[in-house]
Amino acid sequence: MPKPAFLSLDGPDGTGKSTQHALLVDWLAAQGVPVTACTDPGGTALGQQLRQLLLFGRDHRIALPAEAMLFMASRAQLVEEVIRPALARGEVVVADRYTLANVVYQGHAGGLNPKDLWAVGRVATGGLDPDLTLVFDADLDVALARRTRAADRLEERDREYQEAVRRGFLYEAGVRPGPYQIVDATPDLATVQQAVRAKVARLLTDFGWSVTEAGG
Amino acid sequence: MPKPAFLSLDGPDGTGKSTQHALLVDWLAAQGVPVTACTDPGGTALGQQLRQLLLFGRDHRIALPAEAMLFMASRAQLVEEVIRPALARGEVVVADRYTLANVVYQGHAGGLNPKDLWAVGRVATGGLDPDLTLVFDADLDVALARRTRAADRLEERDREYQEAVRRGFLYEAGVRPGPYQIVDATPDLATVQQAVRAKVARLLTDFGWSVTEAGG
Repeated sequence: MPKPAFLSLDGPDGTGKSTQHALLVDWLAAQGVPVTACTDPGGTALGQQLRQLLLFGRDHRIALPAEAMLFMASRAQLVEEVIRPALARGEVVVADRYTLANVVYQGHAGGLNPKDLWAVGRVATGGLDPDLTLVFDADLDVALARRTRAADRLEERDREYQEAVRRGFLYEAGVRPGPYQIVDATPDLATVQQAVRAKVARLLTDFGWSVTEAGG
Repeated sequence: MPKPAFLSLDGPDGTGKSTQHALLVDWLAAQGVPVTACTDPGGTALGQQLRQLLLFGRDHRIALPAEAMLFMASRAQLVEEVIRPALARGEVVVADRYTLANVVYQGHAGGLNPKDLWAVGRVATGGLDPDLTLVFDADLDVALARRTRAADRLEERDREYQEAVRRGFLYEAGVRPGPYQIVDATPDLATVQQAVRAKVARLLTDFGWSVTEAGG
């Protein structure tokens, strides 16, 4: 029996993370891997309400620690309602963002203590960490040029902030080189997806799944 | 110049806490003390939305750590929007509940680690603790008989749970005998209010305010 696995994809906006997430999930499903995809924040009824509050709550400024706690609440619900049950069914879970995003956005870039946010994250998730987190990285100009969606509240920040976000992701990935791996998001979509699949295939093979890098 | 002070009132439902809170605030105002009253959760636009989610969210079960994080988010906003500005203006702030409630309800009674919740509370509030917390205590039968409001989500729990709540409050007050003081909520409303005023007058006098126990 292959072991259940928990993967997350993270990184600054504009690095193609969500597109790569969708492609990865499709590829795994096409190879017969039972896969549960989720998005953090979101993914539950409560999470959707909180996501609306967080991303489009322009009517009142949300205090930074409040913002962090709302993300944590959404994640806590996602873990209990979606991620733990999927892992208990023996599946592979692929999350679009997880605790690392809070550590970077409200911590490294926002000004709260990153260590505090890791600690709060452990309480929110009951200590459930991904087996592998892929951290997408690209030059700021590449990332900014790719952002075609209407900018939401979290994206409407200045360049210095975006640089701090990028540095935060690279720092956190750098200090946890095993479970956190950097993916160069500069090349075209298909090339990046090949790199993603190679890293995921390596982990899943270790976990007893049969996946081939070229498959799907 | 008298020093600004931060007071909170806490304890199980049915101990008369909210009524005593209102009486205390009126008494302070009548003595010319600039006082800001607030209720946690609530007290801000964001807090009101979260309070609705928390207390009347019957449509979906909220996971325990998510519940804790929503309370923390509401409190974080309350601290930044209401409590810190009032203290900066030199006022006396009187809160109906604060971090202790989470430690007891989701911790001692709910099953999360109370120490973890204190730690999360420090992140949410930026380390802002009350100068004095009055913990209302009454026998469970007294408390249950007093609950006249329609029971909300948090109150619809069984007797064993209510006992765990009471023990949690007594435990936490017991290990912090200075800033946490127990008020016997068994006597009639006026007697309890006299005990409240005596404790508050002592602290405020130390802080340089002129209040008299009999005043108001």
